[in-house]
Amino acid sequence: MTAYTPGLHILAVFDAEPAPLQDCNACRNLFDGIVRTLGLSKVGEVYHAFPEAGFTATVCLTESHASIHTWPEFGRATFDVFLSNYQQDNSSKARQFYDAVLQHFGGTAITVTEVFR
Amino acid sequence: MTAYTPGLHILAVFDAEPAPLQDCNACRNLFDGIVRTLGLSKVGEVYHAFPEAGFTATVCLTESHASIHTWPEFGRATFDVFLSNYQQDNSSKARQFYDAVLQHFGGTAITVTEVFR
Repeated sequence: MTAYTPGLHILAVFDAEPAPLQDCNACRNLFDGIVRTLGLSKVGEVYHAFPEAGFTATVCLTESHASIHTWPEFGRATFDVFLSNYQQDNSSKARQFYDAVLQHFGGTAITVTEVFR
Repeated sequence: MTAYTPGLHILAVFDAEPAPLQDCNACRNLFDGIVRTLGLSKVGEVYHAFPEAGFTATVCLTESHASIHTWPEFGRATFDVFLSNYQQDNSSKARQFYDAVLQHFGGTAITVTEVFR
């Protein structure tokens, strides 16, 4: 049995235009596409659009999870992705996940924090 | 409209006995109890027990989310909780959430990181 190896958890806050921050279905397509492209394994998901504005989405993975919470009224989103390194080093995949999200939303990064845990 | 106020995201790694790290249903009861006690609002959830060992759980909240990934084979879990401060300061609730999780699992903290985002 190999030892536990910390994985990379990226916590980001970015600004974006309100339109994509309102579009929960587009985010579902985005996350599904990223999961497929990066060869990750989805084990569950939540997509919840708030009646007033914005949405919350989480995709649970064999490798851990990714979550986003959007605030179109502030033109802002908080996103995090955590990929464990159980069978391989997934750090670059975590960064690619974040890059693809930022690109989709046309986002401007406000803060990005990387924690190995 | 008030301005966006960063919320507290707590990232923890703790060691625990394998038994609670295997018990996905007990974790569901735990999370539901914490959400109720702290007056949070659940908007979705994922509980996935892996066939070989451990589970992944996420509860999505109006206030953001909490997630846990357990590794009974290593006697370890990674847990994070993120509560936004949209209508009130939820920092103390985030810490209470984590404390209740650590107590449930009889855990010994390895690392705890607090990020305001």
